[in-house]
Amino acid sequence: MAQHKAIRDYIRTIVDFPHEGILFRDVTTLFADPRGFRMAVDQMLHPYAGLRIDKVVGLEARGFILGGAVAHQLGTGFVPIRKKGKLPGATISQAYTLEYGEAIVELHDDAIQPGETILLVDDLLATGGTAEAGIKLIERLGGQIIGCAFVVDLPDLGGRKRLEAMGMDVHVLCEFEGL
Amino acid sequence: MAQHKAIRDYIRTIVDFPHEGILFRDVTTLFADPRGFRMAVDQMLHPYAGLRIDKVVGLEARGFILGGAVAHQLGTGFVPIRKKGKLPGATISQAYTLEYGEAIVELHDDAIQPGETILLVDDLLATGGTAEAGIKLIERLGGQIIGCAFVVDLPDLGGRKRLEAMGMDVHVLCEFEGL
Repeated sequence: MAQHKAIRDYIRTIVDFPHEGILFRDVTTLFADPRGFRMAVDQMLHPYAGLRIDKVVGLEARGFILGGAVAHQLGTGFVPIRKKGKLPGATISQAYTLEYGEAIVELHDDAIQPGETILLVDDLLATGGTAEAGIKLIERLGGQIIGCAFVVDLPDLGGRKRLEAMGMDVHVLCEFEGL
Repeated sequence: MAQHKAIRDYIRTIVDFPHEGILFRDVTTLFADPRGFRMAVDQMLHPYAGLRIDKVVGLEARGFILGGAVAHQLGTGFVPIRKKGKLPGATISQAYTLEYGEAIVELHDDAIQPGETILLVDDLLATGGTAEAGIKLIERLGGQIIGCAFVVDLPDLGGRKRLEAMGMDVHVLCEFEGL
């Protein structure tokens, strides 16, 4: 049998983006490939087979691509968590710390009903700051998070441990060392 | 047989967003509903059944949600068109005019191969400025656009006519009068 590419092999590394010294793990080459994209969506869902998931929540912006596909595969609805000022309806918001300063993410206050089961998805887990803010938003509306699924984990940045310390089930498809 | 909601019925209107006098057609309520989201993805693809589509291209950011799901349904890859500075690899860029000033969208220069057939998707067609810029980017890489599909058309803003004047097949799921 021929050797097929793994998820990790579809991900391209861009040197010095968005600034010098960063190795940016670019999932657009994974998403652009029909086999890579299908494998990513399938593998995101393997741990959750047989569980009831009411809604998929994705983090802006690359989490929307994956989240839309994952929700479609599950036959659920999709709910976006967006940067401040982008959602038109009434929202709840959550601040989180960035390398320099802070940022705010928002969720429509009627997008999740108490007790609904949620899968949170994004492309990449780094420090986990955005994901932590997203988890807080979902839990503030009474959503019950079944899992947090990411294509890429950068374990040196500690995001996985941070989310696990919040009691989350964290699922990643591949890891890259370093920043 | 019971009357079921149509696509249009799932879309919420927010008054005065993002600024006074605008009726914002909010598709997040459509996407959050499992039946609404599934219907939208299905209906986006009805005109293209049986045609070969190599890639789905979506416009940032709501076009990513729909585009991810549409690509998943087709079994194709997904390619994002993003605002300036967001794509990490080498890009081509295209400026377009906004109400005040101009904006730039970008596409990875290796994301589409000459002759590939493309479905362009976004949530809403207003003046068609962003879509026109996206079409130009795709065509500059030699992509052959099979169609441009949108959930909502605002016919009073003329986007549909503008894209049809470029020779595009434009497919919309519903219309709202006014701005």
